Amino acid sequence: MSDAIEWVAVDWGTSNLRAWGMSVAGAPISSATSDKGMGKLERGQYPQALQDVVRELGVEDGRHLDVLVCGMAGARQGWIEAPYLEAPTDLRGLAQSSVRPDVPGSTLSVSILPGVCQKRGGENVMRGEETQLLGLASTQQGYEGLVCMPGTHSKWAYLRDTHIGQFSTAMTGEVFEVLRTHSVLRHSLTGENDGAARDAGFGTGASDGLARPQDLLGQLFRVRAASLLSGRDSSWCAGYLSGLLIGTEVAAHLDDIGEAAVPLIGSTSLCALYATVLSMAGKDGRPVDATSVAIAGLSAARQQLA
Amino acid sequence: MSDAIEWVAVDWGTSNLRAWGMSVAGAPISSATSDKGMGKLERGQYPQALQDVVRELGVEDGRHLDVLVCGMAGARQGWIEAPYLEAPTDLRGLAQSSVRPDVPGSTLSVSILPGVCQKRGGENVMRGEETQLLGLASTQQGYEGLVCMPGTHSKWAYLRDTHIGQFSTAMTGEVFEVLRTHSVLRHSLTGENDGAARDAGFGTGASDGLARPQDLLGQLFRVRAASLLSGRDSSWCAGYLSGLLIGTEVAAHLDDIGEAAVPLIGSTSLCALYATVLSMAGKDGRPVDATSVAIAGLSAARQQLA
Repeated sequence: MSDAIEWVAVDWGTSNLRAWGMSVAGAPISSATSDKGMGKLERGQYPQALQDVVRELGVEDGRHLDVLVCGMAGARQGWIEAPYLEAPTDLRGLAQSSVRPDVPGSTLSVSILPGVCQKRGGENVMRGEETQLLGLASTQQGYEGLVCMPGTHSKWAYLRDTHIGQFSTAMTGEVFEVLRTHSVLRHSLTGENDGAARDAGFGTGASDGLARPQDLLGQLFRVRAASLLSGRDSSWCAGYLSGLLIGTEVAAHLDDIGEAAVPLIGSTSLCALYATVLSMAGKDGRPVDATSVAIAGLSAARQQLA
Repeated sequence: MSDAIEWVAVDWGTSNLRAWGMSVAGAPISSATSDKGMGKLERGQYPQALQDVVRELGVEDGRHLDVLVCGMAGARQGWIEAPYLEAPTDLRGLAQSSVRPDVPGSTLSVSILPGVCQKRGGENVMRGEETQLLGLASTQQGYEGLVCMPGTHSKWAYLRDTHIGQFSTAMTGEVFEVLRTHSVLRHSLTGENDGAARDAGFGTGASDGLARPQDLLGQLFRVRAASLLSGRDSSWCAGYLSGLLIGTEVAAHLDDIGEAAVPLIGSTSLCALYATVLSMAGKDGRPVDATSVAIAGLSAARQQLA
């Protein structure tokens, strides 16, 4: 079975790393996950972390195999820096800008794809998402429009087939997390989890965010005031905060969304929330499986390398 | 000298408490500060904390004195709850809604002023700021328009003489602090403090915030991208974050600011930043000493009590 593995695809993020043993036809045969993300590794620890996860895929030590990596392993503070391509650019150029770390004593031949940066029209960076966008372009050929990638740092990118144009990063997930954990709002957010109250709070928050995105700093305090004055419980307040932030984020992009459904690349639960908010704003969102497009992007880049 | 103290004015906040020995003419004769704010006290500890600070004012134990308190001591989790007045309301009504905690064995006669809440048009609360607004109204009679009170939680209130109308709370200061301390942006904010670079960053951030207040979540990430891509130092980035947040906050209120200069009640340094941003937006701000209006407000409320 492992003989059928022709090459190894790796998405190496900040928190963890995921690897797939790929068939000659470009399909994943086996997969493995490790918690050895970029954030936890010194430079010298990458070869062993990779060797361990490749062994888990069912590959015996000593086999000569190509490994193609996207994500934070290519950051300056990662394994070896893969300098950014600058947007606007054709993502089919990712492969030829990949860098090859030295792996002494190993039979693995590793290439790391670059991220994409933007210098004009708002400085910005991405690492990992560009490979998912290439994967989306290869599975949905001819798409033109905004793509939304919800997460800790949501990316919004303009895609025309394999070309990436303007893109931006919304710190929505991280702002939610630091406010929930460290701000005065935490007093209103701790308690039982009641799904119905949370949904109701989410709807009210999303509606407020869509209506007055310019007043996020003011509307945030409603989380606290609603629990003090109206007896809203922690589930409602947590839903309100989540809805307010996502509503505010989506509102900033509405003018650039056309008729076509916006591809949403991220976790299933988060994409469902974004689809709800887009629909409240009269737009369509279409959840896309994040793992599938990551694999498709690595496969497309591999074809460029060949 | 302490015989001249006719009554005691107290501003009892979350972090500390400030007291003034007041003359019959309504001027402060002596002052004292303690770190025994509401956040550090159990209910039973308030009488002793007050007694200590009154002694520091130069008042001998056993004198019969009225003490008038504003601020968080009247919160539900404070000394004794002073239920909110509901806006819109006339702030001259604060005194008659004050509550009197029982202080066994003491010769101090204590009254605590209520805060103000808002239930229609956006739930909101304030405790302490309403007394400063009453003080502003008594020192600047006939003012009508927005008042801005910059701080951890900035308040913006519509004031017509002693009447408070719609008000809101912007969590600007606290959002700055949690992002600076706990988010990924912290990596770009730690280092030397260079005043010129900070001022330059502040100007760019304020300009971005004023121009696109609806995109705060997206513009926040520029702090990180600017340090990664453009080599901006930590001073520039800290200034940018501060300017971006204050610019965004001010932009949300521009439509409601008229020709008259907006009174700015807060710390000198923060009021100067807000005045700069208002001026970039073509408006005027006028810093007002926060301590003076707090004392003036307590004096005005005392006259209503008499």
